[in-house]
Amino acid sequence: MKQTQPPLEIAMLLYPGLTLLDLIGPATVFSWFANIHLVWKTKDLVRSDTGVGIQPNSTFATCPRELDILFVPGGFGQQEHMTDAEVLAFLADRAPTSKYVTSVCGGSLLLGAAGLLKGYRATSHWSARDALTAFGAEPVEGRVVMDRNRITGGGVTAGIDFGLVLLAKLRGDEAAKLTQLAMEYDPDPPFDAGSPKTAGPAIVEQAMSLMAAEMERQASS
Amino acid sequence: MKQTQPPLEIAMLLYPGLTLLDLIGPATVFSWFANIHLVWKTKDLVRSDTGVGIQPNSTFATCPRELDILFVPGGFGQQEHMTDAEVLAFLADRAPTSKYVTSVCGGSLLLGAAGLLKGYRATSHWSARDALTAFGAEPVEGRVVMDRNRITGGGVTAGIDFGLVLLAKLRGDEAAKLTQLAMEYDPDPPFDAGSPKTAGPAIVEQAMSLMAAEMERQASS
Repeated sequence: MKQTQPPLEIAMLLYPGLTLLDLIGPATVFSWFANIHLVWKTKDLVRSDTGVGIQPNSTFATCPRELDILFVPGGFGQQEHMTDAEVLAFLADRAPTSKYVTSVCGGSLLLGAAGLLKGYRATSHWSARDALTAFGAEPVEGRVVMDRNRITGGGVTAGIDFGLVLLAKLRGDEAAKLTQLAMEYDPDPPFDAGSPKTAGPAIVEQAMSLMAAEMERQASS
Repeated sequence: MKQTQPPLEIAMLLYPGLTLLDLIGPATVFSWFANIHLVWKTKDLVRSDTGVGIQPNSTFATCPRELDILFVPGGFGQQEHMTDAEVLAFLADRAPTSKYVTSVCGGSLLLGAAGLLKGYRATSHWSARDALTAFGAEPVEGRVVMDRNRITGGGVTAGIDFGLVLLAKLRGDEAAKLTQLAMEYDPDPPFDAGSPKTAGPAIVEQAMSLMAAEMERQASS
Protein backbone atom coordinates (compact mmCIF):
# COMPACT_ATOMS: atom_id res chain seq x y z
CA MET A 1 0.00 0.00 0.00
CA LYS A 2 1.40 3.37 -0.99
CA GLN A 3 0.18 5.66 1.75
CA THR A 4 2.10 8.46 0.07
CA GLN A 5 -0.37 8.77 -2.79
CA PRO A 6 -2.73 11.73 -2.67
CA PRO A 7 -6.30 11.01 -1.59
CA LEU A 8 -8.71 9.93 -4.32
CA GLU A 9 -11.15 12.67 -5.28
CA ILE A 10 -14.58 11.06 -5.33
CA ALA A 11 -17.92 12.70 -6.07
CA MET A 12 -20.98 10.75 -4.94
CA LEU A 13 -24.37 12.02 -6.06
CA LEU A 14 -27.06 12.41 -3.41
CA TYR A 15 -30.74 12.88 -4.22
CA PRO A 16 -34.02 12.55 -2.31
CA GLY A 17 -35.05 8.90 -2.21
CA LEU A 18 -31.62 7.37 -2.81
CA THR A 19 -30.89 4.00 -1.20
CA LEU A 20 -28.33 4.95 1.41
CA LEU A 21 -26.65 1.54 1.49
CA ASP A 22 -25.84 1.85 -2.26
CA LEU A 23 -23.64 4.77 -1.31
CA ILE A 24 -22.45 4.01 2.23
CA GLY A 25 -21.05 0.61 1.14
CA PRO A 26 -18.53 2.03 -1.37
CA ALA A 27 -18.03 5.24 0.64
CA THR A 28 -16.84 3.14 3.58
CA VAL A 29 -14.54 1.10 1.31
CA PHE A 30 -12.98 4.27 -0.14
CA SER A 31 -12.94 6.33 3.05
CA TRP A 32 -9.32 5.75 4.11
CA PHE A 33 -8.01 6.67 0.68
CA ALA A 34 -10.28 9.47 -0.42
CA ASN A 35 -11.82 12.88 -0.13
CA ILE A 36 -15.48 12.10 -0.55
CA HIS A 37 -17.71 14.83 -1.93
CA LEU A 38 -21.39 14.14 -1.22
CA VAL A 39 -22.98 16.28 -3.89
CA TRP A 40 -26.45 17.68 -4.27
CA LYS A 41 -28.03 20.88 -5.63
CA THR A 42 -27.88 22.47 -2.19
CA LYS A 43 -26.42 21.59 1.18
CA ASP A 44 -29.86 20.98 2.65
CA LEU A 45 -30.38 17.61 4.29
CA VAL A 46 -31.29 14.89 1.75
CA ARG A 47 -33.79 12.20 2.80
CA SER A 48 -32.92 8.69 1.68
CA ASP A 49 -35.61 6.19 0.72
CA THR A 50 -35.73 4.77 4.26
CA GLY A 51 -36.23 8.28 5.62
CA VAL A 52 -32.71 8.59 7.03
CA GLY A 53 -31.39 12.10 6.43
CA ILE A 54 -27.86 12.66 5.15
CA GLN A 55 -25.91 15.89 4.84
CA PRO A 56 -24.34 16.96 1.49
CA ASN A 57 -20.87 18.48 1.87
CA SER A 58 -20.65 19.80 -1.70
CA THR A 59 -22.94 21.14 -4.42
CA PHE A 60 -23.08 20.87 -8.22
CA ALA A 61 -21.41 24.29 -8.28
CA THR A 62 -18.61 23.56 -5.81
CA CYS A 63 -17.82 19.91 -6.61
CA PRO A 64 -14.25 19.55 -7.98
CA ARG A 65 -13.92 19.13 -11.74
CA GLU A 66 -11.04 16.65 -11.79
CA LEU A 67 -12.29 13.44 -10.23
CA ASP A 68 -10.97 9.95 -9.79
CA ILE A 69 -14.48 8.59 -9.42
CA LEU A 70 -17.89 9.96 -10.32
CA PHE A 71 -20.47 7.79 -8.56
CA VAL A 72 -24.26 7.50 -8.76
CA PRO A 73 -26.36 5.38 -6.34
CA GLY A 74 -29.81 3.96 -7.01
CA GLY A 75 -32.97 4.15 -4.96
CA PHE A 76 -36.71 4.37 -5.17
CA GLY A 77 -36.46 8.12 -5.64
CA GLN A 78 -34.32 7.68 -8.75
CA GLN A 79 -37.20 7.57 -11.23
CA GLU A 80 -38.20 11.17 -10.65
CA HIS A 81 -34.65 12.39 -11.32
CA MET A 82 -34.42 10.65 -14.71
CA THR A 83 -35.61 13.87 -16.34
CA ASP A 84 -34.06 16.34 -13.91
CA ALA A 85 -32.03 18.55 -16.26
CA GLU A 86 -29.83 19.89 -13.49
CA VAL A 87 -28.85 16.41 -12.30
CA LEU A 88 -28.22 15.09 -15.82
CA ALA A 89 -26.20 18.18 -16.75
CA PHE A 90 -24.00 17.75 -13.66
CA LEU A 91 -23.27 14.12 -14.54
CA ALA A 92 -22.62 14.89 -18.22
CA ASP A 93 -20.38 17.78 -17.23
CA ARG A 94 -18.15 15.91 -14.75
CA ALA A 95 -17.94 12.59 -16.63
CA PRO A 96 -15.27 13.71 -19.18
CA THR A 97 -12.97 14.89 -16.37
CA SER A 98 -13.50 11.77 -14.21
CA LYS A 99 -11.16 8.78 -14.42
CA TYR A 100 -14.03 6.41 -13.68
CA VAL A 101 -17.74 6.97 -14.28
CA THR A 102 -19.59 4.60 -12.00
CA SER A 103 -22.81 3.51 -10.36
CA VAL A 104 -24.42 0.97 -8.08
CA CYS A 105 -27.94 -0.42 -8.46
CA GLY A 106 -30.37 1.78 -10.45
CA GLY A 107 -27.78 4.55 -10.54
CA SER A 108 -26.76 3.21 -13.94
CA LEU A 109 -30.11 4.35 -15.32
CA LEU A 110 -29.25 7.92 -14.31
CA LEU A 111 -25.87 7.57 -16.03
CA GLY A 112 -27.77 6.25 -19.06
CA ALA A 113 -30.25 9.13 -18.99
CA ALA A 114 -27.29 11.52 -18.95
CA GLY A 115 -26.07 9.88 -22.16
CA LEU A 116 -23.05 8.30 -20.50
CA LEU A 117 -23.58 4.61 -21.25
CA LYS A 118 -24.20 4.68 -25.01
CA GLY A 119 -22.29 1.73 -26.47
CA TYR A 120 -21.16 0.48 -23.06
CA ARG A 121 -21.79 -2.81 -21.32
CA ALA A 122 -23.37 -2.10 -17.93
CA THR A 123 -25.37 -3.59 -15.09
CA SER A 124 -27.97 -2.47 -12.55
CA HIS A 125 -30.30 -3.94 -9.94
CA TRP A 126 -31.64 -7.22 -11.37
CA SER A 127 -35.15 -5.76 -11.64
CA ALA A 128 -33.95 -2.72 -13.64
CA ARG A 129 -31.17 -4.11 -15.80
CA ASP A 130 -33.13 -4.52 -19.03
CA ALA A 131 -34.16 -0.86 -18.94
CA LEU A 132 -30.54 0.04 -19.79
CA THR A 133 -31.22 -0.78 -23.46
CA ALA A 134 -33.34 2.38 -23.69
CA PHE A 135 -30.10 4.37 -23.29
CA GLY A 136 -28.06 2.46 -25.83
CA ALA A 137 -26.25 0.38 -23.20
CA GLU A 138 -25.83 -3.38 -23.33
CA PRO A 139 -27.25 -4.89 -20.10
CA VAL A 140 -24.96 -7.49 -18.56
CA GLU A 141 -25.69 -9.78 -15.62
CA GLY A 142 -22.90 -9.27 -13.14
CA ARG A 143 -22.06 -7.98 -9.70
CA VAL A 144 -19.42 -5.56 -11.04
CA VAL A 145 -19.28 -4.84 -14.77
CA MET A 146 -16.35 -2.95 -16.32
CA ASP A 147 -16.24 -1.54 -19.84
CA ARG A 148 -13.40 0.87 -20.41
CA ASN A 149 -13.83 3.50 -17.67
CA ARG A 150 -17.47 2.75 -16.94
CA ILE A 151 -17.85 0.54 -13.87
CA THR A 152 -21.35 -0.37 -12.79
CA GLY A 153 -22.43 -2.50 -9.86
CA GLY A 154 -25.54 -4.64 -9.27
CA GLY A 155 -28.19 -4.01 -6.62
CA VAL A 156 -27.56 -2.35 -3.24
CA THR A 157 -25.07 -4.66 -1.47
CA ALA A 158 -23.09 -5.09 -4.72
CA GLY A 159 -21.67 -1.67 -3.84
CA ILE A 160 -19.27 -3.28 -1.37
CA ASP A 161 -17.84 -5.63 -4.01
CA PHE A 162 -17.83 -2.75 -6.50
CA GLY A 163 -15.89 -0.55 -4.08
CA LEU A 164 -13.25 -3.17 -3.37
CA VAL A 165 -12.75 -3.93 -7.07
CA LEU A 166 -12.35 -0.25 -7.89
CA LEU A 167 -10.09 0.45 -4.89
CA ALA A 168 -7.83 -2.42 -6.03
CA LYS A 169 -7.62 -0.84 -9.51
CA LEU A 170 -6.74 2.59 -8.12
CA ARG A 171 -4.64 1.79 -5.05
CA GLY A 172 -3.60 -1.83 -5.50
CA ASP A 173 -4.68 -5.22 -4.18
CA GLU A 174 -3.06 -4.70 -0.82
CA ALA A 175 -5.10 -1.57 -0.07
CA ALA A 176 -8.28 -3.42 -1.02
CA LYS A 177 -7.39 -6.45 1.09
CA LEU A 178 -6.68 -4.52 4.26
CA THR A 179 -9.88 -2.56 3.75
CA GLN A 180 -11.82 -5.80 3.30
CA LEU A 181 -10.28 -7.08 6.54
CA ALA A 182 -10.98 -3.86 8.46
CA MET A 183 -14.61 -4.08 7.29
CA GLU A 184 -14.64 -7.79 8.20
CA TYR A 185 -16.16 -8.51 4.81
CA ASP A 186 -16.39 -12.26 5.11
CA PRO A 187 -20.05 -12.57 4.15
CA ASP A 188 -22.25 -15.36 5.40
CA PRO A 189 -25.81 -14.79 4.15
CA PRO A 190 -28.31 -16.84 6.14
CA PHE A 191 -30.21 -17.82 2.97
CA ASP A 192 -29.32 -18.50 -0.64
CA ALA A 193 -31.77 -15.89 -1.87
CA GLY A 194 -29.61 -13.05 -3.15
CA SER A 195 -30.38 -13.44 -6.84
CA PRO A 196 -33.59 -14.21 -8.75
CA LYS A 197 -32.18 -17.59 -9.78
CA THR A 198 -31.50 -18.78 -6.27
CA ALA A 199 -34.50 -17.11 -4.61
CA GLY A 200 -37.03 -18.78 -6.90
CA PRO A 201 -40.18 -17.39 -8.56
CA ALA A 202 -42.39 -17.03 -5.45
CA ILE A 203 -39.86 -14.87 -3.59
CA VAL A 204 -39.09 -12.90 -6.78
CA GLU A 205 -42.78 -12.10 -7.18
CA GLN A 206 -43.10 -10.95 -3.57
CA ALA A 207 -39.97 -8.82 -3.79
CA MET A 208 -41.23 -7.21 -7.02
CA SER A 209 -44.58 -6.37 -5.47
CA LEU A 210 -42.98 -4.94 -2.31
CA MET A 211 -40.60 -2.84 -4.43
CA ALA A 212 -43.46 -1.60 -6.61
CA ALA A 213 -45.38 -0.56 -3.50
CA GLU A 214 -42.31 1.23 -2.16
CA MET A 215 -41.76 3.03 -5.48
CA GLU A 216 -45.38 4.13 -5.36
CA ARG A 217 -45.03 5.34 -1.78
CA GLN A 218 -41.93 7.39 -2.65
CA ALA A 219 -43.59 8.92 -5.71
CA SER A 220 -46.57 10.07 -3.68
CA SER A 221 -44.58 11.31 -0.68
CA MET B 1 -44.76 -12.98 4.86
CA LYS B 2 -47.42 -11.54 7.10
CA GLN B 3 -47.72 -7.94 5.92
CA THR B 4 -50.48 -7.52 8.45
CA GLN B 5 -48.12 -7.48 11.42
CA PRO B 6 -47.42 -4.11 12.99
CA PRO B 7 -44.08 -2.49 12.17
CA LEU B 8 -41.14 -3.48 14.35
CA GLU B 9 -40.12 -0.73 16.76
CA ILE B 10 -36.37 -0.41 16.48
CA ALA B 11 -34.08 2.02 18.29
CA MET B 12 -30.63 2.47 16.77
CA LEU B 13 -28.10 4.47 18.75
CA LEU B 14 -26.23 7.23 16.95
CA TYR B 15 -23.11 8.90 18.33
CA PRO B 16 -20.32 11.04 16.89
CA GLY B 17 -17.74 8.81 15.21
CA LEU B 18 -19.99 5.79 14.63
CA THR B 19 -19.27 3.65 11.56
CA LEU B 20 -22.27 4.41 9.41
CA LEU B 21 -22.21 1.09 7.55
CA ASP B 22 -22.59 -0.79 10.87
CA LEU B 23 -25.99 0.88 11.14
CA ILE B 24 -27.12 1.38 7.54
CA GLY B 25 -26.67 -2.33 6.74
CA PRO B 26 -29.22 -3.59 9.28
CA ALA B 27 -31.37 -0.44 8.95
CA THR B 28 -31.82 -1.22 5.26
CA VAL B 29 -32.63 -4.87 6.02
CA PHE B 30 -35.29 -3.88 8.57
CA SER B 31 -36.65 -0.85 6.74
CA TRP B 32 -39.69 -2.45 5.09
CA PHE B 33 -40.87 -3.94 8.36
CA ALA B 34 -40.01 -1.30 10.91
CA ASN B 35 -40.26 2.12 12.44
CA ILE B 36 -36.62 3.01 12.88
CA HIS B 37 -35.75 5.46 15.64
CA LEU B 38 -32.27 6.95 15.14
CA VAL B 39 -31.55 8.07 18.66
CA TRP B 40 -29.08 10.54 20.09
CA LYS B 41 -29.00 13.04 22.95
CA THR B 42 -30.27 15.78 20.66
CA LYS B 43 -31.56 16.02 17.12
CA ASP B 44 -28.43 17.82 15.95
CA LEU B 45 -26.61 16.26 13.01
CA VAL B 46 -24.27 13.45 14.08
CA ARG B 47 -20.96 13.04 12.22
CA SER B 48 -19.98 9.47 11.46
CA ASP B 49 -16.35 8.36 11.45
CA THR B 50 -16.02 9.00 7.72
CA GLY B 51 -17.36 12.52 8.22
CA VAL B 52 -20.76 11.78 6.69
CA GLY B 53 -23.46 13.57 8.67
CA ILE B 54 -26.67 11.77 9.64
CA GLN B 55 -29.83 13.17 11.19
CA PRO B 56 -31.30 11.70 14.42
CA ASN B 57 -35.09 11.43 14.40
CA SER B 58 -35.46 10.67 18.11
CA THR B 59 -33.73 11.47 21.39
CA PHE B 60 -33.04 9.56 24.61
CA ALA B 61 -36.06 11.36 26.05
CA THR B 62 -38.50 10.69 23.19
CA CYS B 63 -37.43 7.18 22.11
CA PRO B 64 -40.22 4.63 22.71
CA ARG B 65 -39.88 2.41 25.77
CA GLU B 66 -41.27 -0.81 24.31
CA LEU B 67 -38.88 -1.93 21.60
CA ASP B 68 -38.51 -4.99 19.42
CA ILE B 69 -34.82 -4.22 18.89
CA LEU B 70 -32.35 -2.04 20.75
CA PHE B 71 -29.28 -1.70 18.50
CA VAL B 72 -25.79 -0.26 19.00
CA PRO B 73 -23.28 0.22 16.15
CA GLY B 74 -19.50 0.43 16.50
CA GLY B 75 -17.06 2.97 15.16
CA PHE B 76 -13.82 4.76 15.91
CA GLY B 77 -15.73 7.25 18.03
CA GLN B 78 -17.03 4.50 20.30
CA GLN B 79 -14.15 4.58 22.77
CA GLU B 80 -14.98 8.03 24.06
CA HIS B 81 -18.59 7.02 24.79
CA MET B 82 -17.60 4.03 26.91
CA THR B 83 -17.81 6.25 29.99
CA ASP B 84 -20.62 8.54 28.83
CA ALA B 85 -23.11 8.18 31.67
CA GLU B 86 -26.02 9.48 29.60
CA VAL B 87 -25.42 6.94 26.81
CA LEU B 88 -24.94 4.02 29.21
CA ALA B 89 -28.02 5.00 31.21
CA PHE B 90 -30.14 5.11 28.04
CA LEU B 91 -29.01 1.61 27.04
CA ALA B 92 -29.49 0.19 30.53
CA ASP B 93 -32.92 1.81 30.74
CA ARG B 94 -34.31 0.52 27.44
CA ALA B 95 -32.75 -2.98 27.52
CA PRO B 96 -35.30 -4.54 29.94
CA THR B 97 -38.20 -3.40 27.73
CA SER B 98 -36.57 -4.51 24.46
CA LYS B 99 -37.24 -7.94 22.95
CA TYR B 100 -33.71 -8.07 21.58
CA VAL B 101 -30.62 -6.22 22.80
CA THR B 102 -28.19 -6.10 19.93
CA SER B 103 -25.05 -4.68 18.38
CA VAL B 104 -22.75 -4.82 15.39
CA CYS B 105 -18.98 -4.43 15.51
CA GLY B 106 -17.58 -2.57 18.55
CA GLY B 107 -21.14 -1.71 19.61
CA SER B 108 -21.02 -4.78 21.85
CA LEU B 109 -18.41 -3.01 24.01
CA LEU B 110 -20.93 -0.24 24.67
CA LEU B 111 -23.53 -2.86 25.61
CA GLY B 112 -20.88 -4.38 27.89
CA ALA B 113 -20.04 -1.03 29.46
CA ALA B 114 -23.75 -0.56 30.17
CA GLY B 115 -23.69 -3.87 32.08
CA LEU B 116 -25.82 -5.67 29.53
CA LEU B 117 -23.55 -8.57 28.54
CA LYS B 118 -22.59 -9.97 31.93
CA GLY B 119 -22.72 -13.76 31.60
CA TYR B 120 -23.58 -13.65 27.90
CA ARG B 121 -21.72 -15.04 24.90
CA ALA B 122 -21.07 -12.21 22.46
CA THR B 123 -18.96 -11.09 19.53
CA SER B 124 -17.50 -7.87 18.14
CA HIS B 125 -15.08 -6.70 15.46
CA TRP B 126 -12.23 -9.24 15.34
CA SER B 127 -9.80 -6.64 16.69
CA ALA B 128 -12.00 -5.80 19.71
CA ARG B 129 -13.53 -9.14 20.62
CA ASP B 130 -11.23 -10.07 23.50
CA ALA B 131 -12.03 -6.79 25.26
CA LEU B 132 -15.51 -8.17 25.98
CA THR B 133 -14.11 -10.17 28.89
CA ALA B 134 -13.66 -6.91 30.82
CA PHE B 135 -17.47 -6.71 30.99
CA GLY B 136 -18.06 -10.30 32.07
CA ALA B 137 -19.03 -11.46 28.59
CA GLU B 138 -17.65 -14.55 26.89
CA PRO B 139 -16.10 -13.54 23.56
CA VAL B 140 -17.11 -15.82 20.69
CA GLU B 141 -15.79 -15.86 17.16
CA GLY B 142 -18.78 -15.61 14.86
CA ARG B 143 -20.52 -13.42 12.35
CA VAL B 144 -23.79 -13.43 14.32
CA VAL B 145 -23.79 -14.68 17.91
CA MET B 146 -27.04 -15.32 19.79
CA ASP B 147 -27.37 -15.94 23.52
CA ARG B 148 -30.92 -15.71 24.80
CA ASN B 149 -32.07 -12.23 23.68
CA ARG B 150 -28.61 -10.79 23.14
CA ILE B 151 -27.64 -10.84 19.47
CA THR B 152 -24.25 -9.43 18.51
CA GLY B 153 -22.67 -9.18 15.08
CA GLY B 154 -19.04 -9.10 13.95
CA GLY B 155 -17.33 -6.18 12.24
CA VAL B 156 -19.04 -3.63 9.98
CA THR B 157 -20.39 -5.70 7.05
CA ALA B 158 -21.54 -8.43 9.46
CA GLY B 159 -24.46 -6.09 10.09
CA ILE B 160 -26.14 -7.28 6.90
CA ASP B 161 -26.00 -10.93 7.95
CA PHE B 162 -27.02 -9.91 11.48
CA GLY B 163 -30.03 -8.01 10.12
CA LEU B 164 -31.25 -10.88 7.97
CA VAL B 165 -30.89 -13.41 10.80
CA LEU B 166 -32.83 -11.18 13.17
CA LEU B 167 -35.51 -10.30 10.61
CA ALA B 168 -36.03 -14.02 9.99
CA LYS B 169 -36.52 -14.56 13.74
CA LEU B 170 -39.03 -11.71 14.03
CA ARG B 171 -40.90 -11.86 10.71
CA GLY B 172 -40.08 -15.28 9.28
CA ASP B 173 -37.74 -16.74 6.67
CA GLU B 174 -39.82 -15.52 3.76
CA ALA B 175 -39.55 -11.88 4.82
CA ALA B 176 -35.79 -12.26 5.20
CA LYS B 177 -35.44 -13.97 1.83
CA LEU B 178 -37.34 -11.37 -0.15
CA THR B 179 -35.35 -8.65 1.60
CA GLN B 180 -32.11 -10.41 0.73
CA LEU B 181 -33.27 -10.59 -2.89
CA ALA B 182 -34.36 -6.94 -3.00
CA MET B 183 -30.92 -5.98 -1.64
CA GLU B 184 -29.30 -8.35 -4.15
CA TYR B 185 -27.23 -9.78 -1.33
CA ASP B 186 -25.35 -12.37 -3.31
CA PRO B 187 -21.87 -11.37 -2.16
CA ASP B 188 -18.81 -11.89 -4.30
CA PRO B 189 -15.78 -10.40 -2.50
CA PRO B 190 -12.86 -9.88 -4.90
CA PHE B 191 -10.37 -11.23 -2.34
CA ASP B 192 -10.40 -13.83 0.40
CA ALA B 193 -9.29 -11.31 2.99
CA GLY B 194 -12.35 -10.74 5.16
CA SER B 195 -11.04 -12.41 8.33
CA PRO B 196 -7.62 -12.40 10.02
CA LYS B 197 -7.19 -16.10 9.19
CA THR B 198 -7.66 -15.66 5.45
CA ALA B 199 -5.98 -12.25 5.16
CA GLY B 200 -2.72 -13.42 6.70
CA PRO B 201 -0.40 -11.68 9.19
CA ALA B 202 1.02 -8.96 6.89
CA ILE B 203 -2.43 -7.61 5.95
CA VAL B 204 -3.63 -7.97 9.57
CA GLU B 205 -0.70 -5.86 10.74
CA GLN B 206 -1.37 -3.15 8.15
CA ALA B 207 -5.08 -3.08 8.98
CA MET B 208 -4.30 -2.79 12.70
CA SER B 209 -1.94 0.13 12.15
CA LEU B 210 -4.39 1.92 9.85
CA MET B 211 -7.19 1.42 12.40
CA ALA B 212 -4.99 2.68 15.23
CA ALA B 213 -4.15 5.79 13.22
CA GLU B 214 -7.84 6.35 12.49
CA MET B 215 -8.74 5.92 16.18
CA GLU B 216 -6.07 8.49 17.04
CA ARG B 217 -7.38 10.90 14.40
CA GLN B 218 -10.94 10.60 15.75
CA ALA B 219 -9.82 11.12 19.33
CA SER B 220 -7.98 14.32 18.47
CA SER B 221 -10.69 15.71 16.16
